[in-house]
Amino acid sequence: MRQTRGVRKIHVIGIGAGDPDQLTLQAVRALRSTDVFFLLDKGEVKSDLTRLRLDMLDAHLPAGSYRVVEARDPDRDRKAGGAAYSPAVGDWRSARAGIYQRLIAEELDEDGTGAFLVWGDPALYDSTLGILQEVLERGEVEFAYDVVPGISSVSALVARHRTGLNRVAGPVQITTGRRLAEGFPEGVDDVVVMLDAHQAFRRYADEDMDIYWGAYIGTPDEILVSGPLAEAGPRIERVRAQARERKGWIMDTYLLRRHPAKD
Amino acid sequence: MRQTRGVRKIHVIGIGAGDPDQLTLQAVRALRSTDVFFLLDKGEVKSDLTRLRLDMLDAHLPAGSYRVVEARDPDRDRKAGGAAYSPAVGDWRSARAGIYQRLIAEELDEDGTGAFLVWGDPALYDSTLGILQEVLERGEVEFAYDVVPGISSVSALVARHRTGLNRVAGPVQITTGRRLAEGFPEGVDDVVVMLDAHQAFRRYADEDMDIYWGAYIGTPDEILVSGPLAEAGPRIERVRAQARERKGWIMDTYLLRRHPAKD
Repeated sequence: MRQTRGVRKIHVIGIGAGDPDQLTLQAVRALRSTDVFFLLDKGEVKSDLTRLRLDMLDAHLPAGSYRVVEARDPDRDRKAGGAAYSPAVGDWRSARAGIYQRLIAEELDEDGTGAFLVWGDPALYDSTLGILQEVLERGEVEFAYDVVPGISSVSALVARHRTGLNRVAGPVQITTGRRLAEGFPEGVDDVVVMLDAHQAFRRYADEDMDIYWGAYIGTPDEILVSGPLAEAGPRIERVRAQARERKGWIMDTYLLRRHPAKD
Repeated sequence: MRQTRGVRKIHVIGIGAGDPDQLTLQAVRALRSTDVFFLLDKGEVKSDLTRLRLDMLDAHLPAGSYRVVEARDPDRDRKAGGAAYSPAVGDWRSARAGIYQRLIAEELDEDGTGAFLVWGDPALYDSTLGILQEVLERGEVEFAYDVVPGISSVSALVARHRTGLNRVAGPVQITTGRRLAEGFPEGVDDVVVMLDAHQAFRRYADEDMDIYWGAYIGTPDEILVSGPLAEAGPRIERVRAQARERKGWIMDTYLLRRHPAKD
């Protein structure tokens, strides 16, 4: 990013899927050029995920060289509230844009550099880029921003399972649990599923496919299960429920690999 | 990877899309625990891409602490030949498995650690994992292996364009130029296209979509073009042909983003 005097700068930094060693050298460089880190958190996973990020900063930056501002990322269901930057009335997205705008305008000097740390890759099921664009369109605060790509939980998942995303010259689709529950995507046999709170894979238990599942990937709590869906599915449901009970939250993702129909 | 005495170890290391700063800390650690690097190359892009990888090793490893073995990756069309490890007769994949097997068996001590450096992420349109699995199945040489995920050219592309891969809660498909030429994938509006030697996007010039294109991403030669396909498409064709002519090879990828039909 060009250093322009008097324009706030924002880094959107992908910090990998959980393993602090998944930071890229480019991400470390961006951390080191940041004055203020904005840590947005959902309530329930706050303590673990905030601590992981603070540990990363600790590991790579001299103490006292940066400032951290924590804010509550409004829940979609608006149960949260009371934090310093809690959402006003209005819809979820504009509530978030309002919070981000205030963070940038109030917590960052006019020639300062701020950063948002994004788990995984900012390009995949993360709203930071969309929100920053919305803040810019409002026109009330100006800033320049750049994006540092990160190791997504998708890449981390398949690396731990030592398999690829696509088969030879084949396509792969990345989608959500909600969409998978509506039907298996057309025209692909390899599907990565994210944001699945309801184990949508159960619908396909009778079909000839394999599943590669992982939770808390890259952290000491990592769990991996793979195998034919009919066998591995019920095991995943059990393991997942136990882990969620134990930690209070879960982050998991999986690849479904359908075998071509024999005919 | 557990250190087992007398078993060869292999790292498959994703080294990012071209920018040496896209190495992760985990990748640097894996480089440092490697005795022998296997550099496989296609003929035409050999000098540039080999030099980039040798520079990475140079930057992170003490001189004299490692060995590099170069081999020719057989072209699919078998025009190549004559290199130290050139393919025997037989099909392409088994030719490659034969080369990899000989590299591991002949160039690596029985308790040594070797590494294959993969551009981007080993999970996406790369055959290294499949070939290693085939070598293991042949049963003539034993080894343990692990995978270090890398920043894919897909992540690098959209980071440079400062956009996401998916739209809110929507799916994204990653596919090949050949498949895109057959038709726009069903059920998705965001499609990343790799391995497209024939600019398959031209077929969709009359449709309401945006393209985010990039070549040599993360390198000093990087070129980015984006915009409505009808306008940006011809520009990309021109720029791409010139760049290819100038450098002798091109590595490019793009995201097509279809606008929802208005009805």
